[in-house]
Amino acid sequence: MQCGEPVEQVTLRPGMTVDELVSALSRAGAYNGGALARAADIYEAMLRDRRTVKFMGLAGAMVPAGMGRIVSDLIGGSHVDVLVSTGANLTHDIIEALGCRHYHGSASCSDVELREEEINRIYDVFLPNEAFIRFEEFMQDTLSGLSPGAPLTIRDLLGTLGRALPSGILATAARKEVPVFCPALADSMIGLQFWLYSQTNRINVDAFLDMNALLTTCFEAERAGALLIGGGVPKNFILQSMLMTPRGFDYAVQLTGDRPDLGGLSGATLDEARSWGKLNESARAVTVYGDATITFPMLVAAVMERMAR
Amino acid sequence: MQCGEPVEQVTLRPGMTVDELVSALSRAGAYNGGALARAADIYEAMLRDRRTVKFMGLAGAMVPAGMGRIVSDLIGGSHVDVLVSTGANLTHDIIEALGCRHYHGSASCSDVELREEEINRIYDVFLPNEAFIRFEEFMQDTLSGLSPGAPLTIRDLLGTLGRALPSGILATAARKEVPVFCPALADSMIGLQFWLYSQTNRINVDAFLDMNALLTTCFEAERAGALLIGGGVPKNFILQSMLMTPRGFDYAVQLTGDRPDLGGLSGATLDEARSWGKLNESARAVTVYGDATITFPMLVAAVMERMAR
Amino acid sequence: MQCGEPVEQVTLRPGMTVDELVSALSRAGAYNGGALARAADIYEAMLRDRRTVKFMGLAGAMVPAGMGRIVSDLIGGSHVDVLVSTGANLTHDIIEALGCRHYHGSASCSDVELREEEINRIYDVFLPNEAFIRFEEFMQDTLSGLSPGAPLTIRDLLGTLGRALPSGILATAARKEVPVFCPALADSMIGLQFWLYSQTNRINVDAFLDMNALLTTCFEAERAGALLIGGGVPKNFILQSMLMTPRGFDYAVQLTGDRPDLGGLSGATLDEARSWGKLNESARAVTVYGDATITFPMLVAAVMERMAR
Amino acid sequence: MQCGEPVEQVTLRPGMTVDELVSALSRAGAYNGGALARAADIYEAMLRDRRTVKFMGLAGAMVPAGMGRIVSDLIGGSHVDVLVSTGANLTHDIIEALGCRHYHGSASCSDVELREEEINRIYDVFLPNEAFIRFEEFMQDTLSGLSPGAPLTIRDLLGTLGRALPSGILATAARKEVPVFCPALADSMIGLQFWLYSQTNRINVDAFLDMNALLTTCFEAERAGALLIGGGVPKNFILQSMLMTPRGFDYAVQLTGDRPDLGGLSGATLDEARSWGKLNESARAVTVYGDATITFPMLVAAVMERMAR
Repeated sequence: MQCGEPVEQVTLRPGMTVDELVSALSRAGAYNGGALARAADIYEAMLRDRRTVKFMGLAGAMVPAGMGRIVSDLIGGSHVDVLVSTGANLTHDIIEALGCRHYHGSASCSDVELREEEINRIYDVFLPNEAFIRFEEFMQDTLSGLSPGAPLTIRDLLGTLGRALPSGILATAARKEVPVFCPALADSMIGLQFWLYSQTNRINVDAFLDMNALLTTCFEAERAGALLIGGGVPKNFILQSMLMTPRGFDYAVQLTGDRPDLGGLSGATLDEARSWGKLNESARAVTVYGDATITFPMLVAAVMERMAR
Repeated sequence: MQCGEPVEQVTLRPGMTVDELVSALSRAGAYNGGALARAADIYEAMLRDRRTVKFMGLAGAMVPAGMGRIVSDLIGGSHVDVLVSTGANLTHDIIEALGCRHYHGSASCSDVELREEEINRIYDVFLPNEAFIRFEEFMQDTLSGLSPGAPLTIRDLLGTLGRALPSGILATAARKEVPVFCPALADSMIGLQFWLYSQTNRINVDAFLDMNALLTTCFEAERAGALLIGGGVPKNFILQSMLMTPRGFDYAVQLTGDRPDLGGLSGATLDEARSWGKLNESARAVTVYGDATITFPMLVAAVMERMAR
Repeated sequence: MQCGEPVEQVTLRPGMTVDELVSALSRAGAYNGGALARAADIYEAMLRDRRTVKFMGLAGAMVPAGMGRIVSDLIGGSHVDVLVSTGANLTHDIIEALGCRHYHGSASCSDVELREEEINRIYDVFLPNEAFIRFEEFMQDTLSGLSPGAPLTIRDLLGTLGRALPSGILATAARKEVPVFCPALADSMIGLQFWLYSQTNRINVDAFLDMNALLTTCFEAERAGALLIGGGVPKNFILQSMLMTPRGFDYAVQLTGDRPDLGGLSGATLDEARSWGKLNESARAVTVYGDATITFPMLVAAVMERMAR
Repeated sequence: MQCGEPVEQVTLRPGMTVDELVSALSRAGAYNGGALARAADIYEAMLRDRRTVKFMGLAGAMVPAGMGRIVSDLIGGSHVDVLVSTGANLTHDIIEALGCRHYHGSASCSDVELREEEINRIYDVFLPNEAFIRFEEFMQDTLSGLSPGAPLTIRDLLGTLGRALPSGILATAARKEVPVFCPALADSMIGLQFWLYSQTNRINVDAFLDMNALLTTCFEAERAGALLIGGGVPKNFILQSMLMTPRGFDYAVQLTGDRPDLGGLSGATLDEARSWGKLNESARAVTVYGDATITFPMLVAAVMERMAR
């Protein structure tokens, strides 16, 4: 047990850049501020390592909070090779891509009144019901273009949706041919639309078929890295994907608001993942606890600043 | 804005029963102790209401923590009509049903050493790798009994697994003919086993087909209630299932360790669900924040005590 | 690194006692349920060890939540030798002892309306302003009985208040001659009343004088144990008190809702306290994360049940 | 209930300044990212309002984490009129001012080994014991310069310490004649040193005398604002100080990692403070949940950037 570098007291300067702040936090080195600075170092190393297949996990209601464009810009900038998302983020991505908007709202309000005014609440974000009318039109229209032949994969289905959209995460991923996986797609408004469509049409999406492509990617990866926004299905699906291969992840950064002592995977430390072999013994990994609407843009802005130098 | 009942200071008595304690918390009425007491009232009303279809959501690593038997006993006691679970809980349920055990461990340990000793860690629970050898044998054996015909539903697949097991959640659900849904099944060791099997066999499990049966149940339900252990996919899948019907849930109890201000669904209040119409405007609902390894057994023990009177 | 006992799945039984439930959690052994069961073992051992001086720390708004009587009953049962509290808990203890009540309220309400109706809110507990009128009468009346001689200690002041009250924590402590320390007493309504009194009267309470008696107790203690409800000043004041002696605490149980990764003392693990020497290297200690309105009554009910056998 | 502005998806730019990021979070407007942006608006308005007395509360182990210089720079820049701190932060401020350092460490380590190597741990910050030797010398030396006459206030005592130090929070506050209050000073290493000194010397520090000066400031304040880092005694002491005056705070920003549903003051929303009259009904106030080692430097860097324009 040894002392590392001395803690440098943070000095702020008007007009300092985000990476200047993150670098100051690195010299301070403590708590989640220090963890965020280490996350920037690891994420930078991961992006600069050309042998590394870059996974991204996206959980939590990030698109309604305005974090979606950071994801699509990362995809557009070739910083994501595989995206695993919750169905909800993709639903809200489609809604934004269709020109509908989420709105500033309040968490202190009457949800019964909101219900009467047909406004859906996501903590302090409001989403009028009319967005789901546009969403339904788009979904039914796009699904009707699918041919009822051999079983589809979820990835194919999401690719089809992405190609029909002008912008956003799914559209950018389609354009960049980045696969988007969403194992729990049934658990989202997309799933409900699919059910609606299947009442009068026959189509078959396989629940497991995506694993072939994903595990092929894993087997072929020389090295692997993961940026995990939140936990949930995306975190586990990404981490477990390397389990079948002889080696685990080499880089991993998790931004989560959950806590480890409850035993759930979302709050579990990345060290725990080493015991399972999901991470290599020598993997560079860090968990930053906090709200990803703060830590995610800080992390990416800092690393983009470094990459642009 | 009015004051309710006075807070009664809690008086403890040696040998008091769990419901005597919960009732004392009800008279105190404050913070999560008060919420737990309200949860007991709502869950009791839900179980006593014969018109109510009773949903249960199971997220978080509950089976490794010894909470699995509470779930299977509730199913066995006809207190669950529909179970929605994470794949991980079902994986660990199978492991326990096969006679393998989870073990008391420690969260303060070297995960690299654990890796070398082939022990997997779930916070302070240890699971030796050999359990997964038995798991693989069982899975490959059971999957090989499936016929490669029309697309299977995930529910059918889980029913087949349950019928091949002597005890536990899946076995009891199979015996009681309680459907088990798991939309993210691919995101679990069961999913990995399925992928392994599909390398040499052809089988097709549909990702969305379960929604037919689930939504039929929802349309037919006179009233609906939900006990949600944790958040994640099970919470959302249950709550969204009523969205397509003219009415929402009438009763809902959530036990979660997450927090609402991060915007994620797992920590979202059940009030938020009213704005979406997932809960009725007049639904009785409460969220208890805390570790479900404490709140879940307390809730169920208290309500079982009331039901036995 | 070795596996301990197998996790026993928890079996619930209608009418089981609190300690039967806690013992089941002990056999399950996981997460905070397991920690709570270990806390019961440690607290029982601490109470049974006659050589041990028993400290209790009380932070968080416990009296408004109905947890005050558990504290006064523990004092009355000779299970507390030294109490360290926040000023707020003592303020609310006086209010209850004067016959004023806290009331069941709601956390979802307009605080501006509450202000207009002269109701003070503590999360979902309401306290009408009139309680503070009674409180002021009592305080000014009791303070006027103090003689303006040599500097008083805070402990003496609190003892005087306790002797003037019919029931509650301060009254029971006065009757049992248990010292009550409150280093931040100025930071409470008691402090404001003291300021009011000192506008027209002269009295001097020493900020540090209590440390003599406290450290004498610490030096004389053969062994020392601490039950810490919440963190804050009481936790630190108790733990630091042993720092000057050659040895630290032998037993420590902390019930807290805070988290360790923010670096604050309230959420810090008790292991961290070993590095400082506040706990002995071999001390039996555990932290239970969660709402003390649940964990505190469970812990005490379970241990009282054991002690009554 | 109405929708506000649309959520603007955050666009990051390499080299963007901290305030450019905070402004982007303002346009996104969601969760704690949105709250942080509102905090910057409120803190800017508070600093620009010349009629406002500016309070600052400092809790949590901020100095060991390198956040101390931000505080001393704010004092030096005349942005703090009254500081209320925990004793621990002042202890670590003295240690740094004496030239001793805190060090980068790890939260995953053996605290027993640390104890043997005489290293004290604060989450992932290490502090060698030798710092406390220097601290003791300084404290005993400075205390010996005090004359044992009339009762001292805690503020006077801290002023004396500040004047004897070359840099840091206490030194800057002394230089700028900013009063530092610390009602729980006994609960810190400073308190232990005081006790040590008083074993052979006579000195009397009054526990309540500071309230005169503080409440005079409050009565004279045309308007009042508070920046609260963490909760604890500093938060309550600041907020309660306006209770005796006819009006409450006009501006308040709290950065805290605690949660409201546990009922404790540290996690309580600032809305709750309106019911007590601690905040004006129309006060501009916001709570940002998260680790202050991230939110505090972001907030201050953004606002300093605005002030420098």
